[in-house]
Amino acid sequence: MAKVYERLAVVGCGLIGSSVLRAARKTGAAGTLAAFDVAPEVRAAVRRLGLADAAPESLAEAVAGADLVLLAVPPARIGEAAQACAPHLAPGATLTDVGSVKGVVAEAMSAAADLAGVHVIPGHPIAGTEQSGPEAGFAELFQHRWCVLTPLDRPEADYHAAVARLADFWRALGSQVELMDARHHDLVLAVTSHLPHLIAYNIVGTADDLQTVAQAEVMKFSAGGFRDFTRIAASDPTMWRDVFLLNREAVLEILARFTEDLQALSRAIRWGEGEKLFELFSRTRDIRRQLIALGQESAEPNFGRDRTKG
Amino acid sequence: MAKVYERLAVVGCGLIGSSVLRAARKTGAAGTLAAFDVAPEVRAAVRRLGLADAAPESLAEAVAGADLVLLAVPPARIGEAAQACAPHLAPGATLTDVGSVKGVVAEAMSAAADLAGVHVIPGHPIAGTEQSGPEAGFAELFQHRWCVLTPLDRPEADYHAAVARLADFWRALGSQVELMDARHHDLVLAVTSHLPHLIAYNIVGTADDLQTVAQAEVMKFSAGGFRDFTRIAASDPTMWRDVFLLNREAVLEILARFTEDLQALSRAIRWGEGEKLFELFSRTRDIRRQLIALGQESAEPNFGRDRTKG
Repeated sequence: MAKVYERLAVVGCGLIGSSVLRAARKTGAAGTLAAFDVAPEVRAAVRRLGLADAAPESLAEAVAGADLVLLAVPPARIGEAAQACAPHLAPGATLTDVGSVKGVVAEAMSAAADLAGVHVIPGHPIAGTEQSGPEAGFAELFQHRWCVLTPLDRPEADYHAAVARLADFWRALGSQVELMDARHHDLVLAVTSHLPHLIAYNIVGTADDLQTVAQAEVMKFSAGGFRDFTRIAASDPTMWRDVFLLNREAVLEILARFTEDLQALSRAIRWGEGEKLFELFSRTRDIRRQLIALGQESAEPNFGRDRTKG
Repeated sequence: MAKVYERLAVVGCGLIGSSVLRAARKTGAAGTLAAFDVAPEVRAAVRRLGLADAAPESLAEAVAGADLVLLAVPPARIGEAAQACAPHLAPGATLTDVGSVKGVVAEAMSAAADLAGVHVIPGHPIAGTEQSGPEAGFAELFQHRWCVLTPLDRPEADYHAAVARLADFWRALGSQVELMDARHHDLVLAVTSHLPHLIAYNIVGTADDLQTVAQAEVMKFSAGGFRDFTRIAASDPTMWRDVFLLNREAVLEILARFTEDLQALSRAIRWGEGEKLFELFSRTRDIRRQLIALGQESAEPNFGRDRTKG
């Protein structure tokens, strides 16, 4: 695989940042790898794990001379990380991020780094696990995953060239790349990711509060569906707090629709309206079939963790 | 593995019924296997797949002489299936089921078969996939899964012996067995299974109704969490309609708590109360850790279908 960047600097070395380092090394998508994290113990872990060629004590040293700087810090920190990087960035370098929210984050990034002659290209690889930290990353995390880039509205040819190059980088890591408007990204992700996480957090919390059902029983019989929710609800609390606060409008809008629909479903159960339930349940089954037809999901029965039944 | 029953008759040969037949044959837990399904095409499939020693055209013929009759029909049909079987059951035979709801189902079963001198022992193997039909079953479905039996309140020693024997049968199929009160089962499963399914059906329906986000986009970016919900929401519509109608009270009770909690979460997002969100998200993460500590779930990263991130 051809080298896409000469020097990659990753700022923030948790699950995603450390996976980008691993993937860039494994694929050769970047020549030299530099890494920085505000936490001394994470910097030490990066050195111990040998994830980068350089893991200096200062951000300035890490990002100096990089032609790609990738911010993999919690969403609410991206603006300040961009600001801290800006004075040290070479003109013509690309500054990107991996945040799950793009609208406000893109604004904060471009406000911070715009004047430095840097190409700000917000990004979001839709990949992850419920694990956190530099030890949890792995090089294959981005394979066969989508990475959404939400370029700014810029007419310059060199900006467009920088976007194409960043797309090449993600493809080198194994991802498919899609360009999208930042606000639209936030709405799409509110549906496909943010609301599902909110619901999972909520149901696991509700179960935890029950006094009529012992916690041990919930654990024991979780194969009926609940287990899938516990995995989603084990995702990084800091990141997800930021996601909901930064994508507030879209999340509340989708949540309001979800709640309305749930009230209607609740009413159908209360009044014994079996046909309404059957109609919805048949429709949602078709959606799964479309997903399988799209090749995003295997129709094979999974003999491992994925069984659910009442 | 020792033979537990001489002759097993399975009534209803969908995913679960056909899996019981396969597992009983593979493990030798039953000597002779008989099968019946009301649908002629399912009976034909059972014969074509060679799932039973006998798959006669009449229910009476299928259940005659069986020492275990297992009803694997949709929950709302269990009462009438029990009624149809009752006249043909040998005294001392055991009649069980696999329904996801136990309270009303147990009442219907025992009302139908009580006078026949038959041991009615309601049961629920907590295993399944989102597939349906006789082709979807497999012998390993019940391995390392819980099977809950909800015996009636009977003092007779031979009833207790029959319960112990049915437990042995499920253990022979690879399950762990737990005895529980039927009403308590329904409350536990409302939390661990019924509400998660309702939520999954609802969120997939909400996404389907959106006009601002294209269906293709929802599919494409479903790896962020939504995909897990589509799998759950692809479960058998008939069975799940019955579950919600038959376990109405417990489901509405748990749903009301869930909705209250969700309103509080919505309010915390609207007012930017990050600490509240962080506190909940940290608590739910601990629950996952308890689940892993209980050995019900692997802490290993899963390189297949289970990745989620914002």
